[in-house]
Amino acid sequence: MASILQKLITPLFSGTPEPPRNKVTVVGVGQVGMACAVSILLRELADELALVDVMEDKLKGEIMDLQHGSLFLKTPKIVAGKDYSVTANSRIVVVTAGIIKHSPNCIIIVVTNPVDVLTYVTWKLSGLPKYRVIGSGTNLDSARFRYLMADKLGIHATSFNGWILGEHGDTSDADPDIGTDADQENWKETHKQVVNSAYEVIKLKGYTNWAIGLSVADLTESLIRNMNRIHPVSTMVKGMYGIKDEVYLSLPCVLNAGGVASVVNMTLTDDEIGQLKQSADTLWGIQKDLPDV
Amino acid sequence: MASILQKLITPLFSGTPEPPRNKVTVVGVGQVGMACAVSILLRELADELALVDVMEDKLKGEIMDLQHGSLFLKTPKIVAGKDYSVTANSRIVVVTAGIIKHSPNCIIIVVTNPVDVLTYVTWKLSGLPKYRVIGSGTNLDSARFRYLMADKLGIHATSFNGWILGEHGDTSDADPDIGTDADQENWKETHKQVVNSAYEVIKLKGYTNWAIGLSVADLTESLIRNMNRIHPVSTMVKGMYGIKDEVYLSLPCVLNAGGVASVVNMTLTDDEIGQLKQSADTLWGIQKDLPDV
Amino acid sequence: MASILQKLITPLFSGTPEPPRNKVTVVGVGQVGMACAVSILLRELADELALVDVMEDKLKGEIMDLQHGSLFLKTPKIVAGKDYSVTANSRIVVVTAGIIKHSPNCIIIVVTNPVDVLTYVTWKLSGLPKYRVIGSGTNLDSARFRYLMADKLGIHATSFNGWILGEHGDTSDADPDIGTDADQENWKETHKQVVNSAYEVIKLKGYTNWAIGLSVADLTESLIRNMNRIHPVSTMVKGMYGIKDEVYLSLPCVLNAGGVASVVNMTLTDDEIGQLKQSADTLWGIQKDLPDV
Amino acid sequence: MASILQKLITPLFSGTPEPPRNKVTVVGVGQVGMACAVSILLRELADELALVDVMEDKLKGEIMDLQHGSLFLKTPKIVAGKDYSVTANSRIVVVTAGIIKHSPNCIIIVVTNPVDVLTYVTWKLSGLPKYRVIGSGTNLDSARFRYLMADKLGIHATSFNGWILGEHGDTSDADPDIGTDADQENWKETHKQVVNSAYEVIKLKGYTNWAIGLSVADLTESLIRNMNRIHPVSTMVKGMYGIKDEVYLSLPCVLNAGGVASVVNMTLTDDEIGQLKQSADTLWGIQKDLPDV
Repeated sequence: MASILQKLITPLFSGTPEPPRNKVTVVGVGQVGMACAVSILLRELADELALVDVMEDKLKGEIMDLQHGSLFLKTPKIVAGKDYSVTANSRIVVVTAGIIKHSPNCIIIVVTNPVDVLTYVTWKLSGLPKYRVIGSGTNLDSARFRYLMADKLGIHATSFNGWILGEHGDTSDADPDIGTDADQENWKETHKQVVNSAYEVIKLKGYTNWAIGLSVADLTESLIRNMNRIHPVSTMVKGMYGIKDEVYLSLPCVLNAGGVASVVNMTLTDDEIGQLKQSADTLWGIQKDLPDV
Repeated sequence: MASILQKLITPLFSGTPEPPRNKVTVVGVGQVGMACAVSILLRELADELALVDVMEDKLKGEIMDLQHGSLFLKTPKIVAGKDYSVTANSRIVVVTAGIIKHSPNCIIIVVTNPVDVLTYVTWKLSGLPKYRVIGSGTNLDSARFRYLMADKLGIHATSFNGWILGEHGDTSDADPDIGTDADQENWKETHKQVVNSAYEVIKLKGYTNWAIGLSVADLTESLIRNMNRIHPVSTMVKGMYGIKDEVYLSLPCVLNAGGVASVVNMTLTDDEIGQLKQSADTLWGIQKDLPDV
Repeated sequence: MASILQKLITPLFSGTPEPPRNKVTVVGVGQVGMACAVSILLRELADELALVDVMEDKLKGEIMDLQHGSLFLKTPKIVAGKDYSVTANSRIVVVTAGIIKHSPNCIIIVVTNPVDVLTYVTWKLSGLPKYRVIGSGTNLDSARFRYLMADKLGIHATSFNGWILGEHGDTSDADPDIGTDADQENWKETHKQVVNSAYEVIKLKGYTNWAIGLSVADLTESLIRNMNRIHPVSTMVKGMYGIKDEVYLSLPCVLNAGGVASVVNMTLTDDEIGQLKQSADTLWGIQKDLPDV
Repeated sequence: MASILQKLITPLFSGTPEPPRNKVTVVGVGQVGMACAVSILLRELADELALVDVMEDKLKGEIMDLQHGSLFLKTPKIVAGKDYSVTANSRIVVVTAGIIKHSPNCIIIVVTNPVDVLTYVTWKLSGLPKYRVIGSGTNLDSARFRYLMADKLGIHATSFNGWILGEHGDTSDADPDIGTDADQENWKETHKQVVNSAYEVIKLKGYTNWAIGLSVADLTESLIRNMNRIHPVSTMVKGMYGIKDEVYLSLPCVLNAGGVASVVNMTLTDDEIGQLKQSADTLWGIQKDLPDV
């Protein structure tokens, strides 16, 4: 194309272009990875998107399909490869499959289940500081909880709070808060529905992908835009609430461009602290037997 | 929940709520239908989304999965059902599978291939005026063409034009326009790549969905927002360029809240008109043998 | 232009176009009105925008200036006039100046101060049901409060709650809630800052407009998108908390396409109820002496 | 606040936070500067916004007013000052007033009229490479032209092209292109309207601000998102079309994260080249007498 280009434009600068400032890599192009990728593209968060997977044909097909939609997107560069070199200069890496080497200054969001344990393993393997490795944890559980409340009350999910905390899958706290003395017992029932709803979706369609994709895009926004918003995500909790081992559990975290800036201190009952510790013990029981990572 | 609700809020009005004003229905929850649905949700175009399919489990799973992401979406109501009653009051219906009965005042976008023939059949079955039944036609081919140009020139796809017109799959015109005397021959080559690229994606990942989903969301935006933007979509062309039969072919159409407001008149060569007529003849050859619709 | 148009396009339908579905009218093109208009345009909420004012030159200048930016906006039609006929088919009317006749089915948001009294007057003059006339009330005070909290804590304003309720200008409740036992006294101090900050902005730049414009766009979004989100806005409170007169005061309201769908019931102390009643008495003292409206 | 913060959160990292990656500075908080600032905020382009002006009260009032709207914005940090230290780490600087010192790696967009001359002066004073100093030039004239075409044809301004090039104020080319043999003469008339329309707005409301603000946000988007979109902006044209002096004139430029990546080569008639050269001579006549900059 050189000759057409030469006729067409007069370059004003040459040399290496600037590296991207808001590059996001998604590892794994299965249903979850692609839902994360599409949600991040449509929320216009990245100036470059990289996809990585070992299945080369599938990967090529997905990247071409996304590129063909470029006219409708604000992310001007979409790349893919089996080789991790395509991820260079990533600001955020979303891990939906496998375990990976890293870009030195990125923030890793681990989505793969069992998420608390795999976030721990990713943290250990990556050598990154703890505030730069985050598990999606109960962020989605909390969104499901708020959807169920919204559905029951006829009020939009953004108009009240309610976090599911602790271990993803099992849970420790579900305390809705809408400025009223609503009957708490009823929400406990709702809480059970949250846990069941993931299983129900899997039974019905074989996997879940859209809600997790949207929730990861939301985390990515807080990180990319340096927003200091609070999300319930899996973070390294050693030293909090008397937990003595290096385990990842979901607590309300303030996320900004640096990663987990801080963890919100909850006023928990002894019972609730007991449940958190028990989750920590269970996770450590699994992790301590892992080969050295 | 009645008692909690009663304690929680004081209603100011009761009776039937307003019908939705910008409801979009997507028929078919396969890869294409879900990509359309997610693109429309993330571009915040609808105040209600309905999904319809005959596969009840898959449908239920998909709708639950989307609903669980409500916290991150601006569309407050997402419904689904096997029964077409869930589509009541639709403003736009996107057909990605099957043929359907319709809401009386909706606009139908047909995406299912062979798109030109199936748009004709949908039009006949629906009884809607011609300007309310649109085939996605070469809208995506044109986006692919512009992506390939953009990729070669290093200029964003929105910064130049270029329509693929005529029959989807086969094509009749590909005339890029970037305010310069660029070598047209080279673009003919690019044109071939467009046709091949759909096949290549299918070979690689088994289907195409993201680009078509994004392109349908773009059409939906012009319709919902009453934008009068021009898109190359499949429209009923009887009476144009000497075509005598009721066939659907892609021409540049002005889309607004009423559907296809008008068709842009192209200055075509005799050769190009001949190709259009030939496509029309081929399509009519298929359609005339269809059972009465 | 008829001849060019005739050569250029082939119309597919004629007759009256559809009325707009999401038309917003802004009455008054001063600093506040224009900030409302620009915020609504840039958040892509309306398919038609009408501006009304008695100052014809200023009005014409503002509308031309906005129209010249059409290329960058998603609202395809922007109209203006001294005559209220330009507001026909409005869904939302934002009143930033004067008192107006109305479109029969619109929702009116009154922004003009003293907002509680003027909302009452607008309601009486309009003959609309109470849930269709809303005062911007303490919506902006609450946003200012959350900004000040956010600024002090280094956490984004969307990550916690806190409503200023009651009479706009004076206030009755300021109860932040971030899931913790934070020292409430300190927030009382912040509350004073909220009240002072409006006066400070006026002293410094002569008026306030951006924050009120953005907050009105947020209300408009809940109404247009039928979102059922909760906002602290001025609503007719007769019959609540023992208030016996027809006065408008700010309480947490659920807003959807119908207007104020319901009011959230607060668990207030006797002291807080006393303050609300006192505000109601003060307002009624002013209103009862108004000429019959 | 230290004690509340200590009780409230557990920090995970301390030390200096990351510098902003997409900071935008607007110099001048008059009508144009504030319209630029609000357009950039509402299009969610910056992670930090800085305002600079010498009028301290006005500046303080404007910044407080914007900060009070934080709840509705995605830009978490808004700062202001008379001192240029607040602009540190800017990626884009929009100059709507005065002449300024610069951040070493920023891109400057000059909006102040006479824009071609002042862009030249800013370039000389800044010491930045030519591709990093851009004049808003005829970007807005072109948008006005496309609005007027859109208005006449009833087709959205994004659906066709048409650039006004050359000297801002006077003009040299206005060649609409909508894939048809439309009567060119008529557009010449439209061209005159473009030139007059700015004067008309000024006569009516005293200044223009919204359209210029929106158009600057559009340029900012291409720069921040590294989009390689083409815009008609004022660039240093020495060496093009036989122009021998260092003057700024508007030509179609490809804008990306580096600034003006390249200039699109137009196929111009001898007449058109003559007009460009004459504009260059006029500008150089003014510039050569400026004190050494």
